[in-house]
This record gives sequence, structure tokens and C-alpha cells, in this order.
Amino acid sequence: MEHRLHNLMSWLQEQDIEAAFITSTSNVFYLTGFHCEPHERLLGVFVFQEKEPILICPKMEEGQARSAGWPHEIIGFSDTDNPWAFIGQAIQKRDISVKTIAVEKEHLNVERYEELLALFSGAAFVAAEAKLHELRLIKDEKELAILRQAAYMADWAVELGVSQITEGKSEMEILGTIEYELKKKGISKMSFDTMVLAGANSALPHGEPGTNQIKRGDFVLFDLGVVIDGYCSDITRTVAFGDISEEQRNIYDTVLTAQLKAIEVSKPGAAIDTVDRAARSYIENAGYGAYFPHRLGHGLGISVHEYPSLTDANPSPLRTGMVFTIEPGIYVPNVGGVRIEDDIYVTADGVEILTKYPKELQIIK
Amino acid sequence: MEHRLHNLMSWLQEQDIEAAFITSTSNVFYLTGFHCEPHERLLGVFVFQEKEPILICPKMEEGQARSAGWPHEIIGFSDTDNPWAFIGQAIQKRDISVKTIAVEKEHLNVERYEELLALFSGAAFVAAEAKLHELRLIKDEKELAILRQAAYMADWAVELGVSQITEGKSEMEILGTIEYELKKKGISKMSFDTMVLAGANSALPHGEPGTNQIKRGDFVLFDLGVVIDGYCSDITRTVAFGDISEEQRNIYDTVLTAQLKAIEVSKPGAAIDTVDRAARSYIENAGYGAYFPHRLGHGLGISVHEYPSLTDANPSPLRTGMVFTIEPGIYVPNVGGVRIEDDIYVTADGVEILTKYPKELQIIK
Repeated sequence: MEHRLHNLMSWLQEQDIEAAFITSTSNVFYLTGFHCEPHERLLGVFVFQEKEPILICPKMEEGQARSAGWPHEIIGFSDTDNPWAFIGQAIQKRDISVKTIAVEKEHLNVERYEELLALFSGAAFVAAEAKLHELRLIKDEKELAILRQAAYMADWAVELGVSQITEGKSEMEILGTIEYELKKKGISKMSFDTMVLAGANSALPHGEPGTNQIKRGDFVLFDLGVVIDGYCSDITRTVAFGDISEEQRNIYDTVLTAQLKAIEVSKPGAAIDTVDRAARSYIENAGYGAYFPHRLGHGLGISVHEYPSLTDANPSPLRTGMVFTIEPGIYVPNVGGVRIEDDIYVTADGVEILTKYPKELQIIK
Repeated sequence: MEHRLHNLMSWLQEQDIEAAFITSTSNVFYLTGFHCEPHERLLGVFVFQEKEPILICPKMEEGQARSAGWPHEIIGFSDTDNPWAFIGQAIQKRDISVKTIAVEKEHLNVERYEELLALFSGAAFVAAEAKLHELRLIKDEKELAILRQAAYMADWAVELGVSQITEGKSEMEILGTIEYELKKKGISKMSFDTMVLAGANSALPHGEPGTNQIKRGDFVLFDLGVVIDGYCSDITRTVAFGDISEEQRNIYDTVLTAQLKAIEVSKPGAAIDTVDRAARSYIENAGYGAYFPHRLGHGLGISVHEYPSLTDANPSPLRTGMVFTIEPGIYVPNVGGVRIEDDIYVTADGVEILTKYPKELQIIK
């Protein structure tokens, strides 16, 4: 993790910012390798231009932070301690006068902001988000290895889910079986609430799995991901239960072709908007443009939604080391919805598709 | 929900505060009946002393907010809109000059705080938390009915979990079965990550369920809760798998007696610290004081941890309508841990125990 800290320290030097206080679970994990859900308690990392960084966490988590490999100072505090007094002392010892401090403005709450203001009277507060997003954008080999493993388990979970489709089962029952079998393998954390959506429910972008039974002629849509060693996967597959109509088949083929087209144009240097449009134009030309209401995909890593954002308004180029989803969908009310989503890694000259579950239309008899 | 809004409006009048902007999912739900997880998008309710309140939410959630019964103004915004401009206009229409605004300082982030500062230049910001905690402290009949139902399903889940204990099963396998069967009943949201902990794992206050197999002589500890209509239950039961030692039996009896003693002294007017001490003194006198490292319990409602906090440093009296847990525990490293937890409602002259699963020591053969 030291190179990540050094990247942030260099940025502080370049920007003439004396300190950063990073408080979100995901960015603390990124910088320290230590994953902690502190709930209402304080968690954060102070990073300075040159002096030793400080991790602040509940006392009972100190051992975990050390096991995770954090070699620097830790301020552990009990529920009756005031961590801000400890922080004040630790910074005084470092003899740093903080005139500007970088914080996650989308995460830091007003209460803690006021504590920081009291410590660094008159300091200017700048947003740290853009820099952290940029640092997390490019995955290293170790991150990639974990993401491959998370994608592999997502494939496995979809395969299991598809095998469970039979007359009379409900969305929730199939969903429950998937998560049960994952738990038996020791995987309890999903990237987000698993979705198994059938029939009309699959056509609702915000559909929620229920106890309604799936029936022949339904699309069954699986959208799920698992968390492994702090990293998320995210896959969507849609299969048909029994025979489906010509229109349903047409929707499926359109989504699949659109997805393949977007993957085809993905490579280092390709502008993100052109990737989005490769799928979107195809869907529009097929007459389903109004039924594809969301962006093409999103970055993937410690967070299930991170940078880059794959929209038709993002001209940034793809870069080697990015990992993101490509997930076009068509949702026709009362007919059904289809979405096909893969996790994509940008290699030196193209892409590697991390999720490998088949995408040809499967008709479950 | 109107009386909840009026309670908050009265408080604003009393305190001479022109506006409150409430942004946490749980407090927005409390005030509006509308449950929304907006992720990174803005969600909030503006409440004023007399003028019509405003709900701000993503445009695609407007319909849900209306279905939930919100009768007042809604500002819905799309991802390309600036909701703050809409908010500025809506407040201008109400002709209110905001000199003081109440916000949830533990929830509102710095980015939004700066937006509010730009709207209400020079305004003072005061914390709204204490008032909202106080409002949520006393449950009404409708809330109680839901909490009873949530407790009933928690009982059901523990019963199912206990029935699953057999040689060779892992913690995760039993946990997975519990959640699978709940999902089949349409209950997918747990109050927190379900815990099934066996043997040495049960003695870790922060133990995590794993794939290790339970074995005879283990305590098996279940700690779980379900969310029904936005309200949480929370139960813990500990059972023995096969014969256990004299010491384990002694630990169990001590926790159970301590729990019953705390329930016995619970009634309107009883000081919370005396309730905590009723259990704690008994455990201390039995020689296990050092192995009971946490508070006696916590309030329960829309959040799984809310007010009151049952500690030996809280002299506030119990009041009719409060709902909280009583959950003493003893955790002896390498011997095992026992915790017994019920959900308690304070009636007019005593308590009603909402969770009803038996507490006598069960030895699973």
C-alpha cells in the first residue's frame, strides 16, 4: 500500500496542501489495506506531504489494522475517549501548520468538519475525491487477480441460478438458493442486493425480487456480484423460461449484438462515449432506443460503482488497467427486460472479459 | 405522518429555527413514510415553522413517494438537473428568510453543507439529531404492531436455525438456510449481517461466521433480525450442541439469570442505569464481570441501533412506548460465549417481551 500513500503524498506536495483526511471505508481500505466498517465511530487516515501518516480507528480494531499490514502510527480510541484530542496532539508532534486540507466532501459529515475546523482554524477545505478516483482508476496486477476471482464466482452463481429455474419457483427462492450455496463456500458478501427478476418484473429497471412464481414464457434476469478480498464483481445474464415470442427473441438478439459491439470497440485510447454509442446506436436503430434508459456501464473495483462512468457524454479515453462493466439493456413494459453485463479489463492492446458465463440465448425447458 | 411533521414544526417554532433539512434515510422515512435509498443522489425533507414542507428526491422515485402517502410538494430531479436551484426557488416562493437551519450534522456531508451555505448565506447550523431521537423514542401503536411482527419472524428464524444444527454443518451453511427460508417467505432484508457463531468463535464479540464445522461441545450463538415495513427486530439465542462442561453451563445460567433480572426491573420510571446494573452486578458477582464488555442493550425501531442506549452511565428513566433490547453476554476465550437478547416494549405499567423463543438451555443431541 506504500506506493498508494506516496502517490497521495506527491499530490499534496504538487497542490501545496498540507494534509488530507480520508474517511470513507473504501478509500481507507485502498490506502491502508485495512477494511473496517466503523458504523457511527470515527475512521480515517491522515496523510501529510512528508511526515508519517496516521490511521484513526476504534481501539478494538487496532489489531486488525496491524494484521492488515499498516506499519505506521495508529490512534485507537475507546467509546469514552475523544479521538480529536489525540489527533491534535499527534499533528502537533509532527509540527505541521495546516492551511489547506483535502477531505472527501461527499463523505465527511458536518460534525467532523466542525472538529477539523476547530483543530485547523481558518484552514481551507478542498475536495480529495477527484484525486482518489484517479488513483483507483487503474488496477494493478494484484487487484486484477482478485477481480478475476470475483468474476469467476459471479459466473458460478449465475450458472447455479439458471439451474434452479423450474415451474412454480419464485424469484426469491432462486435468489435464496444462490446466496445459500455461496455462503456454503464462505462467500457472504454480495456486491449489492442480488436480483432475480422474472416476466414483467424483469422490465422494471428498479424491480425488486418477490415471491411471485416464475412462469413459462418469462425472461428470467440475474444481476449479482460477490465481494472477494474487498473487490466486487457484477454480472447480468437473462435467460428464457420455455418458449418466448418473436418480439422477446428480437429484444434478446438486439441486446446481445449491442453488447458485443461495445466490447469490440473497447481498447486503450478508445473514447468512452464512442463505446457507449456503439451499443446505443445499434439499439436505437433497432427501434428500442427509448427502452434503454441507462448508461452503458460503470467502473468496478473496491466499490461496485466507481470510475470510469460509461456514458455517451464522457469523451475520456479508455486506459490500460481500467476495469468496468458493459451492460446494455432493453426493458419493454409487460413484454420483459433483457440486460447482458460483463466485467471488462483493458489490456495493453484490447480487453480481457473477466466474466465468462455464456451469452447465447438459453431456453430453459 | 402529519403529526410527526407537526411535532418537528412546533420544535422549530419553540427554538426560533426557520428551517430543518433532514437527509438520513431513516429520518426521511420517519417523517414521510417514504423509504428510499438514494445512494449518491440527494434525498431530503425541508420542514418550516408554518409553510408547506418539501420532499426532494430523484425524479424516478416521485411515484413511490406519492404511493407512500406524501401529500406535500415534491421536487424531483433528474441526473442532469441541479436540485439546489429548484430548492432555492421553492424556498423563495415561501418567502422565508433562513437565519438558523437544523441539519443532521452526523449525516449531512460537507458538499451539501456548502450548497446550503450558498443558499442561506450567513445562516447558523444547529444539530437536529437530539430532537429526532426524542421523537422516535416513543413508539405508537402502529409501529408497535410492526415491531411485534418483526420479532415474531426473528423467533421463527432462530427456531429454524436451531433445527438445522447437526454434525458437520458449518456456521455459514446454517446461516444460509435461515436466510434462504426467510427469502422464500418474501423477507430479504435483515436488520444486520446475520451471525451464527460456534465454539471459540462464539466467544469473539466481533466473530464472523465461517465455513468451519460446528462440533459437539460447542455453544452455537444466533444473533439476527429481520426488517419488516421499515422496522427492525434483533434477537440472540445460544444453544448447546451436545454435552457441555460445567463451566459452560454455569456461564449460560449466569447470563440467563442476569437477563431475567434486568427485565424484572424494567418498567416506566426505572432508571436505565439501574436496569443495566441489575444484569451487570449479577454477572460481576458470579466472577464474569470482565467477560461482559458491552452495554446491556439499545433502542430498536427504524434503525437497529437507536435510542435509548442502555448503559450503566445513563440515568434517564424508561418511558412507556420505548422499545429496546436487553442482551447481556459472557465471552470466555476458548470456552465459548453466551448472549441472550430479547426485544422489550415498555407498557403502561411494565414490559411486553416481543421476542418469545424459549430461553431455557437447550442441548441439541
